[in-house]
Amino acid sequence: MHTIQIPVRYQETDMMGIVYHANYLVYLEIARTELLRELGVEYKDMEQAGFVSPVTNVSVDYKKSVTFGDTVHVRVWVDSYSKIRTVYGYELTDQDGHLVGSAKTTHVVVKQGDFKPVRLDREFPEWHDMYMRVMSPVT
Amino acid sequence: MHTIQIPVRYQETDMMGIVYHANYLVYLEIARTELLRELGVEYKDMEQAGFVSPVTNVSVDYKKSVTFGDTVHVRVWVDSYSKIRTVYGYELTDQDGHLVGSAKTTHVVVKQGDFKPVRLDREFPEWHDMYMRVMSPVT
Amino acid sequence: MHTIQIPVRYQETDMMGIVYHANYLVYLEIARTELLRELGVEYKDMEQAGFVSPVTNVSVDYKKSVTFGDTVHVRVWVDSYSKIRTVYGYELTDQDGHLVGSAKTTHVVVKQGDFKPVRLDREFPEWHDMYMRVMSPVT
Amino acid sequence: MHTIQIPVRYQETDMMGIVYHANYLVYLEIARTELLRELGVEYKDMEQAGFVSPVTNVSVDYKKSVTFGDTVHVRVWVDSYSKIRTVYGYELTDQDGHLVGSAKTTHVVVKQGDFKPVRLDREFPEWHDMYMRVMSPVT
Repeated sequence: MHTIQIPVRYQETDMMGIVYHANYLVYLEIARTELLRELGVEYKDMEQAGFVSPVTNVSVDYKKSVTFGDTVHVRVWVDSYSKIRTVYGYELTDQDGHLVGSAKTTHVVVKQGDFKPVRLDREFPEWHDMYMRVMSPVT
Repeated sequence: MHTIQIPVRYQETDMMGIVYHANYLVYLEIARTELLRELGVEYKDMEQAGFVSPVTNVSVDYKKSVTFGDTVHVRVWVDSYSKIRTVYGYELTDQDGHLVGSAKTTHVVVKQGDFKPVRLDREFPEWHDMYMRVMSPVT
Repeated sequence: MHTIQIPVRYQETDMMGIVYHANYLVYLEIARTELLRELGVEYKDMEQAGFVSPVTNVSVDYKKSVTFGDTVHVRVWVDSYSKIRTVYGYELTDQDGHLVGSAKTTHVVVKQGDFKPVRLDREFPEWHDMYMRVMSPVT
Repeated sequence: MHTIQIPVRYQETDMMGIVYHANYLVYLEIARTELLRELGVEYKDMEQAGFVSPVTNVSVDYKKSVTFGDTVHVRVWVDSYSKIRTVYGYELTDQDGHLVGSAKTTHVVVKQGDFKPVRLDREFPEWHDMYMRVMSPVT
């Protein structure tokens, strides 16, 4: 589990006066990348090896709006993992601890070019080991 | 039901070479706005009356990537309606008819300032009538 | 010369209630791409040939704000061309003909990977001919 | 003068593999807001007082591309000030000290609603004093 803090950018607001809902997906990605770094892997390395990791599902519950001047705290964890598919869970709060929202995103790893999914235990054993460790009930 | 066509903008792609996943939420919103216009109401008018309509849930399944040069066809419809809450359904295809993804978004209407949800049949009877008509099994 | 019409997207607004200033650069790019298409070339083809065309300078004067519900008309033309460098000029107006802003952008063409600039008359003679024709005072 | 560090977000890249040029304007704004905070004023307070500060001109020179994994260092200063108009200067470098670009942005302060420019020495004397101090050759 990992938590990052993201100060809201002015550009992220819309004329409703609050952060535009699509920008939450950007916050989630930043948190996810940081979690991976903390766990010892770099998403950038995967791309340099010729693979990318597209999102196959996103689901977000919006509970409370945030705006410029607020800081969003994003807590992220590996929710489930199956060699082919990784699901991350997220909880977002504001600087006062109020629940802003929660989310899940699902990811696969594919080859650049053909976008065919690959098995992580074969192509990226260090990622596989990391996910297995993080998923372990003992940890 | 309504379908719009959105040519992918270069700005919407990312270094994976495809449309960044958060931008699908923008496509959905454009389609939703067009559907409302077709049904005789304007979202802009709601804001000018002092109300806004935030998203409370978003769920997207990504099936196939699209990129610059592609045109995304977004089909949108009112999936369910309950005076307080409206759910829209979406299906996205590319210019060759391949399924790109599907989605649902849930919305409430709130007062600007306090963000308290209001009942559409009381505050916006013409929207209520429109939703009831669109939801009607006869139509 | 070419003119396109871009309806403002809700996502493009910010909490000032108007289109966020960086989004004008997106409008300019859409107009530029359309101008090229009209002139018989496709930017997409250049990328598929292993070249990209980064912006080296952008300059925008903002005269009047626009917001959701407005349509921006972008007029674009080739302002100058020198085998290495192309400058586009732009004038933006709203649906009532009021001046919204004006801009210039400068571009080079470079090889993907090393980002070294190339001469258009050598690498892309059809683009070179097109620019020379468009720049011609006779036309 | 003030310098901030901005790690590039994946979302900010495009299919050219580099940060999309319009996103530099977002970086500039974040640096500008931080400079103001350091100088003792908060842009947020200006908006809460019923005023906004739109950009009237932007000019950016792009020297070197950056991508995901890079960190952009933005140095920002008040370049000139005239009660009605403030010009900020910027220099961007990457984590290795290479020049990424330079920019200037011009701003006015206007009333929300009518967008009429106001004189800072009358409406926001503390901002005026701050700008005069920062502009002073003695400092």
